[in-house]
Amino acid sequence: MKIDLHTHILPENWPNLREKYGYGGFASIEHCGECRARLVIDGKHFRDIESNCWDPLRRIAECDAAAVTRQVLSTVPVMFNYQARPEDTHDLSRFLNDHLAGVVDAHPSRFHGLGTLPMQSPALAIRELERCVRELGLCGVEIGTNINGKNLDDPGVFEVLEAAASLDAAVFVHPWDMLGRERMPRYFLPWLVGMPAEESLAICSVIFGGVLERLPGLRICFAHGGGAFPGTLGRIEHGFHARPDLCAVNIQRPPSAYLGRFYVDALVHDAEALRQIVRLFGVNRVAMGSDYPFPLGEHPPGHLIESMPDLDDPVREQLLWKTALDFLRPRTAETTAPAVAPGQAHHPA
Amino acid sequence: MKIDLHTHILPENWPNLREKYGYGGFASIEHCGECRARLVIDGKHFRDIESNCWDPLRRIAECDAAAVTRQVLSTVPVMFNYQARPEDTHDLSRFLNDHLAGVVDAHPSRFHGLGTLPMQSPALAIRELERCVRELGLCGVEIGTNINGKNLDDPGVFEVLEAAASLDAAVFVHPWDMLGRERMPRYFLPWLVGMPAEESLAICSVIFGGVLERLPGLRICFAHGGGAFPGTLGRIEHGFHARPDLCAVNIQRPPSAYLGRFYVDALVHDAEALRQIVRLFGVNRVAMGSDYPFPLGEHPPGHLIESMPDLDDPVREQLLWKTALDFLRPRTAETTAPAVAPGQAHHPA
Repeated sequence: MKIDLHTHILPENWPNLREKYGYGGFASIEHCGECRARLVIDGKHFRDIESNCWDPLRRIAECDAAAVTRQVLSTVPVMFNYQARPEDTHDLSRFLNDHLAGVVDAHPSRFHGLGTLPMQSPALAIRELERCVRELGLCGVEIGTNINGKNLDDPGVFEVLEAAASLDAAVFVHPWDMLGRERMPRYFLPWLVGMPAEESLAICSVIFGGVLERLPGLRICFAHGGGAFPGTLGRIEHGFHARPDLCAVNIQRPPSAYLGRFYVDALVHDAEALRQIVRLFGVNRVAMGSDYPFPLGEHPPGHLIESMPDLDDPVREQLLWKTALDFLRPRTAETTAPAVAPGQAHHPA
Repeated sequence: MKIDLHTHILPENWPNLREKYGYGGFASIEHCGECRARLVIDGKHFRDIESNCWDPLRRIAECDAAAVTRQVLSTVPVMFNYQARPEDTHDLSRFLNDHLAGVVDAHPSRFHGLGTLPMQSPALAIRELERCVRELGLCGVEIGTNINGKNLDDPGVFEVLEAAASLDAAVFVHPWDMLGRERMPRYFLPWLVGMPAEESLAICSVIFGGVLERLPGLRICFAHGGGAFPGTLGRIEHGFHARPDLCAVNIQRPPSAYLGRFYVDALVHDAEALRQIVRLFGVNRVAMGSDYPFPLGEHPPGHLIESMPDLDDPVREQLLWKTALDFLRPRTAETTAPAVAPGQAHHPA
């Protein structure tokens, strides 16, 4: 049993959004033969993709080859479009979420789903969140590490997270719109330096902003093992104690008190880093995720976990699927783990 | 024997730089009684400091209390002033370096010195670097993680680093002007998230930019244990292999091949993080540094190293002073370690 918490999917086609909404900034897809396509934004090449980005059957075949039982589907961050008019992002989110839910419904034993929201409008985001959970049966949503530069301690973001907690919806936080990317013109550094910094900033924002303190029921997960946060926690913790005038505004306890209060995926590409996040966050807060189908992901998914001889079987199982189920808490019988008795899958020890 | 590689010093007074150079952006010092002062930039409060920031005798007394044999002095990054006219920064650098060298000369058994340079003009920076080393007897220089937004792979920066290598001058890289700080208005995050990101960006720039490849003799050290770099090296290494089209432009070998080619200080505030940087970079590339006299520093200096029972004495000695001497290579007899035979202090095993 393996559940890949961190995978991205797109529809095979979508409307011309520039024409539909009347302005630019949106990604379009240009197919090149049957198996490949280009994502283009305002005529500029953004990324080449293959059919495993949109074709559920090819995804299932690749999962079978890698012994992945299920993928958790979320959109590609380029489709967040928080910069657009809220009603347009709302419209696009509905389209993307309907598509994603359709893929899950067609293959309920192979996919779980996380929707996308028009986060720049908390009211519309909450309306679509409710639809994702109540009508579409998705486990939760994927949101960006920031909303047009606002961090996750923003009051509007808090409203959405509060709604997610009360709806029992999982929130997967993915980096995008990387801070300092104007300083990183070369060497893929927005992905190698900017993304880990985004993730540390997002985690620090929900800790120092009191979000985790105020929402004890929130299930929130950060991509890429929490980025730079785990490796710099010593400094962050020390900062809280050294400058309480700046850091202890919304919380009374130090950052380390909130370890175990959020999830991360295991996408760290290094055995020692994986040991570190398991030690810091707890084995039941770390879930396998591969960033499938993108080249910076882990191939095959779960390889690092499976290759570490020092992990015993219960730890490996927890990392490979049990934490994901605990985070997602899928509602339908069909999507619980076949080998696990009802009522136990959602709360692994 | 303890050498504190990472400490900051200011003169007790300096000219009104706005008046001297004819424009703003410079720090001024306003003394409040004998022991305290405020740093002010264009009338805006920047930081409160105490007399241990400028008074060598108070510093020596505090070193004695903490069993610190010597401090390595460098300016406070707010004095870099790379944004000013090059000839003005050159003039200010000369003033600061003369002051710093004077403190070292007055107490040669207690202080080593690292100068500051007008990095925005490679020609002036090299001229002042030569003066620092040849006339003032300093061990090297402290530079910022970026020069007005240019990273350390910039061709102009390379000229200065090349000169440092040929002059056998040590280069200590300190974060400032933090990327994404406009995204960090609260909770001290430019120091807790921005600085570690700056350091990772600086290290990635000298690796991916081919600086370490082209300057095998360069001795370069990064503050705060290398910031986010060590904890995210798995991702950085994976990125090199996943996108050689972007990452293998100036280097043929992966980032991990350059571990051991640069120094870091030990200022990570966490035993596991210290073990990690020692494991990654080598014990002879990690040097105690405290960020004295600032509140985010380590008090007392070297406490973490001295409190870890799993470090044996040779490792502890290497971290507490031998690595610093290897990095600095002080030239005068008086500044080599009393307990170490001549010729051995500069090249510990």
